Formats: sequence, C-alpha cells, structure tokens
Amino acid sequence: MNNTTDTRVTVIGLGLMGQALSRAFLKAGHPTTVWNRTAAKADRLVAEGALLAPTFGDALKASPLTIVCVTDYPALRELLATTDADLAGTTLVNLTSGDSAQARETARWAEERGARYLDGAIMAVPPVIGTADAVILHSGPESDFEAHKPVLEALGTVSYLGADHGLASLYDVAGLAMMWSVLNAWLQGTAMLRTAGVDAATYAPFARQIAAGVAEWLPGYAEQIDNGSFPAEVSALETDARAMDHLIEESEALGVNAELPKLIKAMAARSIAAGHGAEQYPVLIEEFSKPHEG
Amino acid sequence: MNNTTDTRVTVIGLGLMGQALSRAFLKAGHPTTVWNRTAAKADRLVAEGALLAPTFGDALKASPLTIVCVTDYPALRELLATTDADLAGTTLVNLTSGDSAQARETARWAEERGARYLDGAIMAVPPVIGTADAVILHSGPESDFEAHKPVLEALGTVSYLGADHGLASLYDVAGLAMMWSVLNAWLQGTAMLRTAGVDAATYAPFARQIAAGVAEWLPGYAEQIDNGSFPAEVSALETDARAMDHLIEESEALGVNAELPKLIKAMAARSIAAGHGAEQYPVLIEEFSKPHEG
Repeated sequence: MNNTTDTRVTVIGLGLMGQALSRAFLKAGHPTTVWNRTAAKADRLVAEGALLAPTFGDALKASPLTIVCVTDYPALRELLATTDADLAGTTLVNLTSGDSAQARETARWAEERGARYLDGAIMAVPPVIGTADAVILHSGPESDFEAHKPVLEALGTVSYLGADHGLASLYDVAGLAMMWSVLNAWLQGTAMLRTAGVDAATYAPFARQIAAGVAEWLPGYAEQIDNGSFPAEVSALETDARAMDHLIEESEALGVNAELPKLIKAMAARSIAAGHGAEQYPVLIEEFSKPHEG
Repeated sequence: MNNTTDTRVTVIGLGLMGQALSRAFLKAGHPTTVWNRTAAKADRLVAEGALLAPTFGDALKASPLTIVCVTDYPALRELLATTDADLAGTTLVNLTSGDSAQARETARWAEERGARYLDGAIMAVPPVIGTADAVILHSGPESDFEAHKPVLEALGTVSYLGADHGLASLYDVAGLAMMWSVLNAWLQGTAMLRTAGVDAATYAPFARQIAAGVAEWLPGYAEQIDNGSFPAEVSALETDARAMDHLIEESEALGVNAELPKLIKAMAARSIAAGHGAEQYPVLIEEFSKPHEG
C-alpha cells in the first residue's frame, strides 16, 4: 500500500450511489468505514471489507475524509443535528444533491464546527462510479480539494470549479439543462422527421453533428456576453426569428408538439421587442437573466 | 475549362444569399446568368462577369440548371405564374426557405411543366457560401442530385437526404431547433453561473463539453425509439424529474428565467403521468409527437 490507498475514508449514506462510492474506495484499497440510518444496507459492503460504524459520530471520527451522499439536504440537516462532535481535523465532501444556497449554508455549519468542507455534484449514474466516465465536480477551498484529490480520484474524473461552495450544484443543474435541451431538440426533430417516414436512427447522426458543431461556437459567443456587445457578425436576431416561425408552422402543420419551438420564438420575440433585433443571438442573455412576468 | 466548370447555370433571386450563390458560381468558372425582379441588384454581378437575363423566362432558358433563391414561396409562386414556358430539359434547384408542404407542392408544379426538380435548404449565412462551411441540403430524385452535384459543389458542402422533396426543409428546421436549443441551454446556464460571479467565458467550455458529450448518445437513444422500447439502462424518467425540480427551484431562487426549466419538467411530467416514469428519456418521443392540448 502506498500513502494514498492507505488513507482511511468514511462514506455516509448507502443508497445506490453511496454503495457505489464505497465500493470504488474499497476497490482502490482504502480502509473504508460506512454508516447508514438503516444499518442493513451496509451488509454487502461489510462482506466486501467495509467497516460499519455504530453511530454517525463514530463514522465521522473514523477517517480524516468523510463523503456524504444522503437523500437530500433536509435529511443531511437532521443527521447533523444528532451530533455535537468537534469536527476539527475532519474534511467533509458533501455529494448530496441540492441547490447552491443549501451548499453554502452547510459549508457555514461545517466550518463553525471546525471541519474542512467541500461541496460536490456527481454527474454520473451509480454503475460508472470508479471509472473515468464518472465526472464529479467540487467547489470550496482549493487547498482542501488538492489535499484530497488523490483519494477522490478513486471515484472517477474529479474536477475543481472554484472557492464558492455553491458552484458544484450550479454547474450540475446547468449541465443537466444542456443535457435535457439537446435531448429535447433531438426529440423535436425526430418527431418531425418521422412524419416523413425517416426513422430515428437515420436522423440521429445529423442531430449529433449540429449539436456538436453549435457547441464549438459557445466560447466565441461567450466573449460577446462578457463584453456586453452583440454585433450581428453571423446573423441578426430578427432574421433568426423568421426561421423560428417556420419551425413553429412546420411543427403545427405536421401535428407534432410545438411548445419548444414556441418557447424559442417567445424568448427571441421579447428580445426583439426590447430593441435587440439587429443584434446577435447571445443578446438573449438579458432575457435568460430575469424572470418572465406573465 | 473542364466539363464541370463549363456548365451554364442560372440564379433567380439576388438578395444577399442569391448574390453569394451567383458569385460562388462565377468564381468556379461557370457561365452564370442571373435574374431579379429589381434588375439593378444585378449590376455588381454583371460587372463581375454575370449575364443578366431580360425576363424570368429567358433566365430559365439560358441554362440547363437554375438555382432559385427568392424571399418565400408566395413570391416564387407569383414568379412561376408569369411564365408558361416548357421546362423540359431544365433542372430547378429551389433553395427558397419554406416548409415541407410547399416544397412538395412546388415539385408537383415543376414536374407538370416537364422540369426536373430538387428542393434544398441552405444551412449557412451568405459570407460562407462557396466554402466547405456552407452546408446545403438537397432532396428529390437522387439521379438529378447526382447529375448536378459537381456543379452544386461550387456552393459548399452539398448533401442528399432522400427522394421526398420535403426532407430538405424538415432537416433544416430540425437542425435549427437543435441550434437554438443548445444556445438557449447555454444561456440558461450562463445566466445561473453569472449570479455566482462566473463569467460566460469560464462556463462556456463546460457547456460545450456537455453538449458534445450528449450528442454522442443520440444514435444509441435512437435505437430505443425505432424499437419502441425504452428500458431504463442509464436512468429512469422519474429520477430525472427530481433533478428537473432542482433546476427549476435553483433558477427561481437565483432570479433568472425559469421557462425553459419548466418546459423540460412539463414534458417529462406528462410522460410520467402517462405511465412512463420507470422508462428512459427517449420515451418522451410520444409527447413530442403530438400537439399539447392545454
């Protein structure tokens, strides 16, 4: 055993994801302590070599690094209220799903108790944990991330986003919004093409190429946003809006769903109404940055 | 001059796009005849070597291949009504923006007059016409596409979609739906991250990676649609739906727009209500394939 795999780790929460995390640590050779409200969920892991802590407090004390992955933040808060242990010397890496405000609040709680705290988000499903395909985002103090990175790498491809504890959950939901949007746009196109007898497999490579191609524009378009200036170098929003009408009309004529096309048009129409018709698409950041009253 | 660049071509419609098409043909060495309702728009092209036809009918007769790129289909129909010329021996390639029904209707008109007819869609802006970046889609009889492909390649990267004349415009709007969806999801994420002080340029590479990564899933997901079977190999829709709630709640808490997150959730919620919660995301094709009554 080298220094890294010698490091003791604790995993709190043994749902499907917590079990996968525990198993990845065991596989990498870490002495792994586990704890779950319902202790029976630890049985298989104990058979595979994990140590079951009798209480939540014992689990925290067992290792310098504790990974938390419970149902949600209310469950986490309830758990934390059961212990008044001094957490000095402990680092918590909280992979529980939640929002950025919950992450920041939990960071404050942990720091008040003397713990080091990183918030994280798992962009993967349990079966890929422990492989490079499991992307896990972290935010909080960079030195804490760097100190534990060699151990965390047993779980997948780990990345660091910044000191603000809320960043991991923000990137997570932003990434999910992209995922569902690509899938929905593909479903919209597939539904349209199927009316002409084109099967999904025939259309998919075209959709893939467009999505990957447009993805390449993002860094350049980001410069327009950061500069707050949106010259129509490629196309003006009012030209795009006419093509959006074609998309709506075609969807309606074909009898497929037209809600996504209509939302696309509505966002652009509001920006045009606000005087941005001669500017380029990224000017829509102004609409996306505020709630819609209506 | 070889046989290909010796081929005479005609371009009807000299808006920004028609002018770019004409210029690409001239640059490739084709004797190029042009016509526009307002003849003055041809002046620069004539100075560059184009021939101006006195009438629409003369323009059609000047070349075996005529590219049409006018404002819209009503403008095209008006134009076609001005001539009763026999179009036998002529091939029309219609790049006018319109929907699939208009393309099929125009194909019938052209075929009744003895013309060969291809419908097309330009997925590019005028400045890139004549380069490989200008993707131009074609649909109609494959033999007509193959016969004229060497000439059409002067305009950009040409591709053939199938015999149904409506396919070019269907793929075009489907591709645009993907384009706007990737951009909107990126704007949603950018708006969220900016509330935490993350600039657009910092977030863009992450969004690019997610979009390109999800694009790779489409061919596999297409198999589920074509098989009509949606086993939850990676994730069940009801699990996704909980994460969608996080996206909505986070958007609202941050004070950014939440319409896109809400539409994502609404589509999934309807599919779950229809009994598909334990299936995988592509089962949403059933919702995308029908209008929403409500």
